[in-house]
Amino acid sequence: MSLLLPLLLRGAGGARGALRPCCRAAARRGLSSSSGGWAGVRPGRRSLLAGLAGAAAALAGLGLVRRAEMVSREAVAEEEDELSRRCGDFMAPPVSGLRELRSRRQDMRSRMEMLIMETQSQVCRALAQVDRGAAFTVDRWERKEGGGGISCVLQDGNVFEKAGVNVSVVFGHLSEEAAQQMKSRGKTLKTKNGKLPFCAMGVSSVIHPKNPHVPTIHFNYRYFEIENADGTKQWWFGGGTDLTPTYLNEEDAVHFHKTLKEACDEHNPELYPKYKKWCDDYFYIKHRGERRGIGGIFFDDLDSPSKEEAFQFVQSCAKAIVPCYVPIVKKHSHDSFTPEEKLWQQLRRGRYVEFNLVYDRGTKFGLATPGSRIESILMSLPLTARWQYMHTPPEKSREAEILEVLRNPKDWVH
Amino acid sequence: MSLLLPLLLRGAGGARGALRPCCRAAARRGLSSSSGGWAGVRPGRRSLLAGLAGAAAALAGLGLVRRAEMVSREAVAEEEDELSRRCGDFMAPPVSGLRELRSRRQDMRSRMEMLIMETQSQVCRALAQVDRGAAFTVDRWERKEGGGGISCVLQDGNVFEKAGVNVSVVFGHLSEEAAQQMKSRGKTLKTKNGKLPFCAMGVSSVIHPKNPHVPTIHFNYRYFEIENADGTKQWWFGGGTDLTPTYLNEEDAVHFHKTLKEACDEHNPELYPKYKKWCDDYFYIKHRGERRGIGGIFFDDLDSPSKEEAFQFVQSCAKAIVPCYVPIVKKHSHDSFTPEEKLWQQLRRGRYVEFNLVYDRGTKFGLATPGSRIESILMSLPLTARWQYMHTPPEKSREAEILEVLRNPKDWVH
Repeated sequence: MSLLLPLLLRGAGGARGALRPCCRAAARRGLSSSSGGWAGVRPGRRSLLAGLAGAAAALAGLGLVRRAEMVSREAVAEEEDELSRRCGDFMAPPVSGLRELRSRRQDMRSRMEMLIMETQSQVCRALAQVDRGAAFTVDRWERKEGGGGISCVLQDGNVFEKAGVNVSVVFGHLSEEAAQQMKSRGKTLKTKNGKLPFCAMGVSSVIHPKNPHVPTIHFNYRYFEIENADGTKQWWFGGGTDLTPTYLNEEDAVHFHKTLKEACDEHNPELYPKYKKWCDDYFYIKHRGERRGIGGIFFDDLDSPSKEEAFQFVQSCAKAIVPCYVPIVKKHSHDSFTPEEKLWQQLRRGRYVEFNLVYDRGTKFGLATPGSRIESILMSLPLTARWQYMHTPPEKSREAEILEVLRNPKDWVH
Repeated sequence: MSLLLPLLLRGAGGARGALRPCCRAAARRGLSSSSGGWAGVRPGRRSLLAGLAGAAAALAGLGLVRRAEMVSREAVAEEEDELSRRCGDFMAPPVSGLRELRSRRQDMRSRMEMLIMETQSQVCRALAQVDRGAAFTVDRWERKEGGGGISCVLQDGNVFEKAGVNVSVVFGHLSEEAAQQMKSRGKTLKTKNGKLPFCAMGVSSVIHPKNPHVPTIHFNYRYFEIENADGTKQWWFGGGTDLTPTYLNEEDAVHFHKTLKEACDEHNPELYPKYKKWCDDYFYIKHRGERRGIGGIFFDDLDSPSKEEAFQFVQSCAKAIVPCYVPIVKKHSHDSFTPEEKLWQQLRRGRYVEFNLVYDRGTKFGLATPGSRIESILMSLPLTARWQYMHTPPEKSREAEILEVLRNPKDWVH
């Protein structure tokens, strides 16, 4: 098991300077309007696309004998219309481009790219609605070797200190290092002339709020495909959503886990307990003997029971992000707090940095991959953090209470 | 080449709770008094030790025929007196204990332990003199497997945000992991019944000032001994001192490097250029394409021209710490600064954290070693740090000026 994918997803892309200024500027105008639309894309484009689809349908109406064909073409046109309508709500045009997505719209790569773009958009819009003082900066970047990504970052808002939601869609040939890491975790790879075509995509995010009573959330959903020498494909999904509160609020913990459990239970009642434990095991700061937070779900190498069912499960998880988190944000974003509570938050942010830089396989691999987009990888780090020598909270304090849960994870829902 | 030693030095020691409260309390009374003396050691102990030495000398005076012997015993007593006098200035009693050090006072392990204790004391006293509002906390810790350490930390003073000076003296048998790492860097190790007795000691320190015009300093001097199966010993020294300014001050950079160069030149004019380059190469944040600071000197595996000469060189380097740094602190600790300058310092502190957690072999190995004293290892992290998405200083700004030097190291003295 490894997190090769998120690294590639977060890390890939060398075009650090390839920002589209119009994109950033448009995005800075804010997202709180209900109009949607792509940042930086000329306003007429959506209707133009819809118009072309309509014209294609009209051209197809040439006689009764062709009625069946016409009906099917109309269905296709309608589907295409639906695709461009969905794309219209994204934070930026999809990495693969509308034409490409349209040409292979039944393919999992297209469906997953649509899902991660949609997730990015839903989360960003929900956050922008809560934090009315802030706007997302939208950076589009390209990867020299194939693909690219869209990074949406909100910094120093009223509610959020730093919130990043990143999409990457990268493809090409697997590097020797990446292939080696996959082999080491048990994947059998059959190279063609020493090459391994791959495609990796995902959405990943870390949201650090200002108020110490609002927890930090992290999520990441990803899809990987490798083409074997004989043309067959290996594929799998990975992902997870986890919460890092500064102070324990049992009601919030239960709400968060319950929402995730419900998303899992729709598919299989065995998933939540398994992925909840995996999450507790993965986000472990070994040298501190503490988990990073109160967990959530985490999974990798998911390739069963079928591609369709796995995708449906990932989709349910992605759809649970906003309902598991945003109500908690709304509930606490106006809570009052003391300087001591802010200080404890900063110390916990220090632990967040320790986990991400020392243990997170995605971050480590990303940093070690030449040509990585460092700013997107390290987007996960908090705006500010603190390390204090020998800081130990007093017994029975609220700080000691959360530490206890981080040292001995609890079951929040049964 | 590896930094196995500092890891063991900084990391070893499992007695996380084995602090001596009397020690901490006494240390908190401050170090600005000129009386010296061990924190937490009963006041009468020093004179008692001196008295015992005197009594031994008196007992030896039994007749003329024994005059030669008596003279030699007097010399020994004088030497012992000198040893206890030197120990009296330390921050705490030496890890090996006075009796042990006395019994093998010509041995390199004793001489090096005296040097690192003396260095700790000199640096702490010099810093406490500059930062009159602050006092060092002195923690003495023991390592279950053998040895221990003394951590001196000043936190939230007037001048220093966080200053830690740590001594460790550890011994026992090399772990399989440690032995493996040594083999991988070319050491030939001949185990006796699968065991490798070792002794490792050193002083290491990171000093983070508050004012962004006062640079951060790091130093570390260490000695390692391994006993081969045939009873012969392998030994080597390692160390270095390097500076991390937030803003470039050429005069300070020249002073710092010149002081180190002079310490090196006393021994061999080839040392400074070699160790200056090694330092630039080692403190490299690869994913940023930047050095952590403006360098200094760095060396490892030093086992020539002789043990005595290598020790003399290390001693010269250790003696250069206060003169290379303290004048810079005094010069700038009252400089005025803007909130923007403080912010840039915090961003650079973020880079410091990135280097230490991602690349520093000492830190990485320490964190991976079970039973490490985490608080001493992570003492090197700043009190506060910051990460801002896509922060790029304007061209020709003072921030861009230091970045240029971090990307392309300069020669400061010729």
